[in-house]
Amino acid sequence: MQSLSIEQKSSLTSGATTWTSQGVGDIESMHMSDGPHGLRYQGSDGDSLGLGASVASTCFPTAAGLASTWDRDMVRRVGVALGEEASELHVSMLLGPGLNIKRSPLGGRNFEYASEDPFLAGSYGIAFVEGVQSQGVSAVPKHFAVNNQETDRFRVSAELDERTLREIYLPAFEMTVRQARPWALMCSYNKVNGVYASQNERLLTTILRHEWGFDGVVVSDWGAVSDRVAAVKAGLDIEMPPSNTDGKIVDAVKSGECDESVLDTVADRISLLARRTRQARSGSPRAARQSISEHDDLARKAAQESVVMLKNTGILPLSTSDSSSIAVIGEFARTPRYQGGGSSHVTALHVRNLLDELRQALPNREITFAPGYAVPRQGGSEVPDAQRLVDEAVRQAKDASVALVSLGYFESDESEGSDRSGISLSDPQTKLLEAVIATGTPTVVILSGGGVIQLGDWADQVDSILEGWLLGQAGGAALADILTGVVSPSGHLNETIPRRLEDNPSYLHFPGSHGEVVYGEGLYVGYRYYDTMNLPVAFPFGFGLSYSTFSYGDIEVESVDATSARVSLTVTNTGSHHAAAVPQIYVRSNQDDRPVHELKGFERVELDPGEGTSVALKLDERAFATWDASQQRWRTYAGDYTIEIGTSSRDIVHSKTITLRGDGYVPPLTVMSTIGEWMASPYGVRVLKPLVDRIRASAPDSSPEMAAMFAQMPLIKLVSWGIGLDETKIEAMTSAANRLKEEDAKG
Amino acid sequence: MQSLSIEQKSSLTSGATTWTSQGVGDIESMHMSDGPHGLRYQGSDGDSLGLGASVASTCFPTAAGLASTWDRDMVRRVGVALGEEASELHVSMLLGPGLNIKRSPLGGRNFEYASEDPFLAGSYGIAFVEGVQSQGVSAVPKHFAVNNQETDRFRVSAELDERTLREIYLPAFEMTVRQARPWALMCSYNKVNGVYASQNERLLTTILRHEWGFDGVVVSDWGAVSDRVAAVKAGLDIEMPPSNTDGKIVDAVKSGECDESVLDTVADRISLLARRTRQARSGSPRAARQSISEHDDLARKAAQESVVMLKNTGILPLSTSDSSSIAVIGEFARTPRYQGGGSSHVTALHVRNLLDELRQALPNREITFAPGYAVPRQGGSEVPDAQRLVDEAVRQAKDASVALVSLGYFESDESEGSDRSGISLSDPQTKLLEAVIATGTPTVVILSGGGVIQLGDWADQVDSILEGWLLGQAGGAALADILTGVVSPSGHLNETIPRRLEDNPSYLHFPGSHGEVVYGEGLYVGYRYYDTMNLPVAFPFGFGLSYSTFSYGDIEVESVDATSARVSLTVTNTGSHHAAAVPQIYVRSNQDDRPVHELKGFERVELDPGEGTSVALKLDERAFATWDASQQRWRTYAGDYTIEIGTSSRDIVHSKTITLRGDGYVPPLTVMSTIGEWMASPYGVRVLKPLVDRIRASAPDSSPEMAAMFAQMPLIKLVSWGIGLDETKIEAMTSAANRLKEEDAKG
Repeated sequence: MQSLSIEQKSSLTSGATTWTSQGVGDIESMHMSDGPHGLRYQGSDGDSLGLGASVASTCFPTAAGLASTWDRDMVRRVGVALGEEASELHVSMLLGPGLNIKRSPLGGRNFEYASEDPFLAGSYGIAFVEGVQSQGVSAVPKHFAVNNQETDRFRVSAELDERTLREIYLPAFEMTVRQARPWALMCSYNKVNGVYASQNERLLTTILRHEWGFDGVVVSDWGAVSDRVAAVKAGLDIEMPPSNTDGKIVDAVKSGECDESVLDTVADRISLLARRTRQARSGSPRAARQSISEHDDLARKAAQESVVMLKNTGILPLSTSDSSSIAVIGEFARTPRYQGGGSSHVTALHVRNLLDELRQALPNREITFAPGYAVPRQGGSEVPDAQRLVDEAVRQAKDASVALVSLGYFESDESEGSDRSGISLSDPQTKLLEAVIATGTPTVVILSGGGVIQLGDWADQVDSILEGWLLGQAGGAALADILTGVVSPSGHLNETIPRRLEDNPSYLHFPGSHGEVVYGEGLYVGYRYYDTMNLPVAFPFGFGLSYSTFSYGDIEVESVDATSARVSLTVTNTGSHHAAAVPQIYVRSNQDDRPVHELKGFERVELDPGEGTSVALKLDERAFATWDASQQRWRTYAGDYTIEIGTSSRDIVHSKTITLRGDGYVPPLTVMSTIGEWMASPYGVRVLKPLVDRIRASAPDSSPEMAAMFAQMPLIKLVSWGIGLDETKIEAMTSAANRLKEEDAKG
Repeated sequence: MQSLSIEQKSSLTSGATTWTSQGVGDIESMHMSDGPHGLRYQGSDGDSLGLGASVASTCFPTAAGLASTWDRDMVRRVGVALGEEASELHVSMLLGPGLNIKRSPLGGRNFEYASEDPFLAGSYGIAFVEGVQSQGVSAVPKHFAVNNQETDRFRVSAELDERTLREIYLPAFEMTVRQARPWALMCSYNKVNGVYASQNERLLTTILRHEWGFDGVVVSDWGAVSDRVAAVKAGLDIEMPPSNTDGKIVDAVKSGECDESVLDTVADRISLLARRTRQARSGSPRAARQSISEHDDLARKAAQESVVMLKNTGILPLSTSDSSSIAVIGEFARTPRYQGGGSSHVTALHVRNLLDELRQALPNREITFAPGYAVPRQGGSEVPDAQRLVDEAVRQAKDASVALVSLGYFESDESEGSDRSGISLSDPQTKLLEAVIATGTPTVVILSGGGVIQLGDWADQVDSILEGWLLGQAGGAALADILTGVVSPSGHLNETIPRRLEDNPSYLHFPGSHGEVVYGEGLYVGYRYYDTMNLPVAFPFGFGLSYSTFSYGDIEVESVDATSARVSLTVTNTGSHHAAAVPQIYVRSNQDDRPVHELKGFERVELDPGEGTSVALKLDERAFATWDASQQRWRTYAGDYTIEIGTSSRDIVHSKTITLRGDGYVPPLTVMSTIGEWMASPYGVRVLKPLVDRIRASAPDSSPEMAAMFAQMPLIKLVSWGIGLDETKIEAMTSAANRLKEEDAKG
C-alpha cells in the first residue's frame, strides 16, 4: 500500500460509479449488485436513483418467504445460485442478505427481512452468506444496524438501550459475522442513539471488528454517508454511490485531522476483498449460462417450502381424480405478486401464475377464473365496476365445488422507501371474499404479500388459508404443487400474526416523530412480547401446518458444562404424506426482566410416512446469556432453565428443566455496591460482616422494611451515619474485598 | 458574600446536622423536616437513618388521598396548616410535596405522590407550595427528577427520551416552579439518562434555573450526592445529610477545578432562602399552639374529600333512623391504616378509627365488630387460626342487615425503600370477603392503601366500594361521615385502576435491572396508554361517584389566539344531596404520535341540590403543545383540537372542536431537510421548485412509491445524482432559503 498516494487511497473510500468500487494500483474495481432474492444487474453506471431496469435473472422468494422455510440447506442453495448468477455477470459483491429485525408489521421493507427473532434471522444470514461466498462472490449483509423502518430512514435516530441492542438488533449480524465470515457489510442510513450508522465508530469498529472479528469491507447504504471524514475514521470503507468529495479525505489526512494509517487500513481491507472476489470476475460470461432451468427448479422448491399453511379443515390437498370444477378467483392468481418494490426489484426470467399452473396440474378438472378485484395501476383510474367483478366471481364460485381465492397486498403497499399504514386486506378484497364465502362453496384463501396480513372474521369461515408471501418467479407453480398435494406445506411463520395491529408491541412507538423513534418495547419484540404478556394471537411465531402429522419422543436434555447444554429428540412422521417437521427449541428462564422464552435452536427434517429420525442440538452459552448493562458483558447466571420443544412458540410439546452452574462471574465490588450486594459476595461478606453485625445489634427491633432499605443502600452512604466511617475507610474495605477476589482467582 | 472565606462558603454546601443547614456569618442555620402530610420533627440531630420517632403532629391524608380531592383550595389549606405547624416548631423547610409521576402501580412510594397525570400533579404542587410558603416556610418539592420507583433507587438510571421527560416527568415540577415559585427543591437519588440527578447540570441549572426561572436552593435527597464537586458545579446547593467532605469543595476551589464564583452563587442562594424563611424561625413555640383541633377538623375535611366512591347500588348512605344491625368487619376498621412507611411517617396527634366513629354516629343501630384477619406484626408469627377469624366475621355478617368490610394493603406492603410485588388483596382478605359475600348480606367494601388495588371478581358482587387511600389521623371519622351521608363522596381517581397489573404500560419495564430502568412506554403513562389503546380498565382516571347527580350545559369553546383557548360551561346539581362535581377538560388532537387526549383543566365545584354554577377555564399554549425533539422546543401545530368535558377520562359528556392557527414556527431548512420538507416550506419551495420540476420532467412516469422515496430524501443526497449539484451549491440553496425566512421575519 505504501506505493499509493494519499489521493489514490482517498479515492478508494468512495465508489467509481453507482455500482462499482474504485480500482487503484493493483486493487481491481469491483461491481456490486442488489440481490437479496435475485440479481439486479444494471451495468456499471445504473441510473441516477439506481432503481431502474435491470438484466433479467432468476427471482427467488423474498426473505419473508425464504426465511419461512426454516431450512438452512435451502437458504444456502439459494445463496449458491445467487452467487453463480453474480459470478456469471462478473459481479463481485451481492448486496444481501437483509438481516434487520421485523420490529413492526408495518415495516415497508419487511419482505426483505428474515424474522422478528434474531436467532432465526441469524441462522438465515449464516446460510445465505455461506452459499453466496462459496461462489467467490462477497455477500454484503445489511443494513447495519437498527434499521427497522422506512419512514424518515435517512435521518431517524433509533433510540434504544444497550441490552435491547445486544439481545435483539445485533445478534443476527453477530451470528452471521462470527460464523459465516462475510467479506463485506452494508451500514444503514439511520442514526443509532443519535449517531449515524455510517459514522458510528462503536458499531463499525468496536463491536463489528474488535468484538466480532470482522475483517471485511463496510460499504455505505446508497447515500448513507453524512460526514465523509467522520465515516472513514469510524470504520466505513466505501461511500456508495460516490458524492465526488474524496478531496475532503485528502484534506483531512494532509491537515492531520485523519491519520494516514486510517487510509492504509481501508486500502488493505479493500485490497483483501478484491483478492477474495477475484474468482467472481473471471466467471463465465452471461451467454454461456447453463443454470437458468436449474435455478428455476430451485426457485420452485424454495417457494414450495416457503408457503405456510395456517388452516386446513381437510379440503387440501385438492383431489387430482375428482372432476368437479374449481373456481380460481382473484387477479393475483393470474398476475402474481411475487416480489416487492425498490432496490431489490428483479427483472424475473420467467414468471408463472397459479391459474395456468393449476390448469396444467389438474387437466381433468374444470377450472374457471374470475379476477374479482382490480390491481391499482400506476396513473390508472380505479376500475369503475368493482361490483361486476365480485358478481362474476360469485357466479363462478356458486358453480364450483371449491373456490380458491387469491388475495393480499398490492405492490404499492410494500416497498423500500415507505412503511405500511395498516395490515388489513383492502376493502374490495374483503368484500369479494365475504361474497364468495356467502355462496357456501368451500373456500381456500391464498395470501400474497411480504408482511403479515391481519385475518378478519372470515378466517373462521374459510376451509383453508395458505400464506404465500412473495414467492418469486416460480411461486405460481409452487402453490399449485401444494394445492394438489405434490408436496406438503412445510413453512413456518418467521413473524407472529397478531389479532390486530394494536396488539403489536411497537404500536405506540412506530415510526416515531421529530427525527426519533424510541424502541420503547425494548426486548419485547414479536413473540417475546405476546408470550410474556400471554396475549392471544391469530397465529403464533413458528406456526405452520402440514398434510402429515408428527410425534416427538426420546427427549434428552443435559448440561454440557457450566453454561451450555445438549438437546436430543426423535421426530416421527406419523401421517401418510412425505413431509417436513420443524422442531423448535425455546429456552425459558424464570429470571426477572427476561422474555418468558426465546428461540435458541431448530431443525427442519423431511420424513417419509412412518419414518423417524433423531435430532441433536447444542445450546451454547448465548442460548442462556443475557446482557448485563451495568457490567457491559454477557452473563450466564446460575439457575434453572427450561428447555422447551415446540412446533410453535405457543405449542410446546415437551419441556425439561436443567440447572446450570453459570459463568461464575463475580462483579467487582465498589463503594456504590449496596450493602446487600456486599453481603451476597463471597469476598464482600468477609470484609463487611463485622460492621453489619454491629449495626444490626444497635437496632435489634428493625422492621423488615428498614432491613430492606438498609440492604439496598450503597456502602458509601454510611459516611453520613456517624459511625466512624469515612470515604478512605470505605475505599480500603473495597480494595480489601477485591483483593480477596484476585487472590481467589490466582489461588 | 465577599467576607466569607472559601472554607466558610464550602461549609454551606452541606448540612450542619441530619436536619439542619450550616449557619455561617449572617446566614442563619435552617431546620428541615419531612412533612408531605404532617411534620416529622426530630430535633436537630435526628437518628442515624433519620427515620426514628418524632414529635407528635397532625397527620393529614397522604398525597394519594389529598390529590384525589381535585380541590386546589383544600390542598392549599392543608399546606397552610403544615406551614403553621412547621413554623411553631421553628422549621424553615418542609420537605414536600412529592411530585413524581405514578408510573407503575407497584411504586412503593406512590402513596406520597399525586398522580399518573402531570397536570393534576402540577396543580397539586402549586396549591401545596402556595399554602406552605404563605406561612413563611419553604416548601421543598421533591424528588427532582424521574424518581418513580424505590428499587435500586440510589443508583438506577431512568432511561427516557427527551420528549417523555418534557411532557410527562417534568411538567408537575415546571408548573409548580413557574407558578408557585418554591424557595427550595430536592433532587432525587437516581440517575437520569446516566447522570445522577444530584450532579445533573442540565436538570439543576439549564432547565430548572435558566428555563423555568427557579431562584431557590436545591438540597439533595438524604444521601443522594455521589461526587461533591460535580454536584456543586451542576447546581446542587446543599448536600444532606453532611458527609463531612466539605474539604473536597475547598480543594476544588483552591485547585481551580471549581470556580469560586460557583460557591458565591451557592452562598447567595442559601442566604436568600434564610432571609425568606426568617419568619418561620420566629414563630410561636410549640407550647402555645392553638391549632390542634382546627387542624384535626381540616384533616377530617380533607379526608372526606379524598374518598373515592367506586360503586354504589344505593346501599349508601346508611340510614341513620333504621335500627337494624351493622356488621363492621376487618381489623383496619379498628386499627386504621392511615399513612405509609419511611421518611413521611408521622407521629399522629390523635387517630380515630371507623368502628368507634360509626358507633358514635349511629347510636341507634347495633354495630358488631369482627377483625376478620390479622395484621402481620413485626417479628410476630402468623395468627394461627385465620379460619376462626373468618368464621366469626361470617357469623356476624349473617345476623346483620349490612356488612362493612375494611380491607387493603398492610403497612409492610408500601413504604419508602421498596416497591410492591403485586396489586391484589392478600389471600386471607380475599377469602374473608368472599365468605362475607356468600352470606347474602349486602356488603360495602372500604379499601385502605396508598396505591390502587386490583379488584377481584368480588367487585361485581358487592353493593358498594369506597377507595379510602391513606386518610390520615381523621380518616375513620371521615369514612363514617360518608357512610352515614353527612357528606357526599366527591373524590376522583388520580390514577387509573387497571383490570390487571399486566395491563399497566410499564409492566414489562418496571423496575428494570442491571442499574437501568428503561421508560419504554414513553408518553403512554396511565390513561394516556389505556385510552389510546382503547383497553378496558376497572375504573378510569378521573372517576368518582357521588350521592348526587349533575348535569352539564352551555358549553362554550373558543380560541383566544393562535395557540390558546377558553372553555366555559355550567354545572348543575340535579340530585338531592349537597355534593361536589369535578368537570375535567381533556384536549384531543388527531396528530400522529400523541396520546388520544390529555387532561388540561379541571375545577371542583360544590353545589346544593338544584344549584348551578358556571365554570370558566383558560387553556394556555401548553394545553396544546408537544415537545419537538428535533428542534428542542415546544410546538403548537396548526390544526383541529377537540375540547372534551368529562367526568372521567372515559366518560366524556360534551366535546367541541376548534381550529388553532398554531405557533407559526417554521423550522430552519438544512442540507439534511428532505425534499418534501423543502417543498412544504414557504421559503424552501421558492428556491427548490425549479430544480424539482426539472427532475420530475425527466422521469414523467415515476410511480407513487418512487415519488414518496424522493420526497423523503434529504436534499444533500442529490450530490450523487449526477445532475450537476455539489455540496457548495446545496449549501447556497440552504442559505438562500433561510435568508428568505429572515427577510420575511423582518419585513
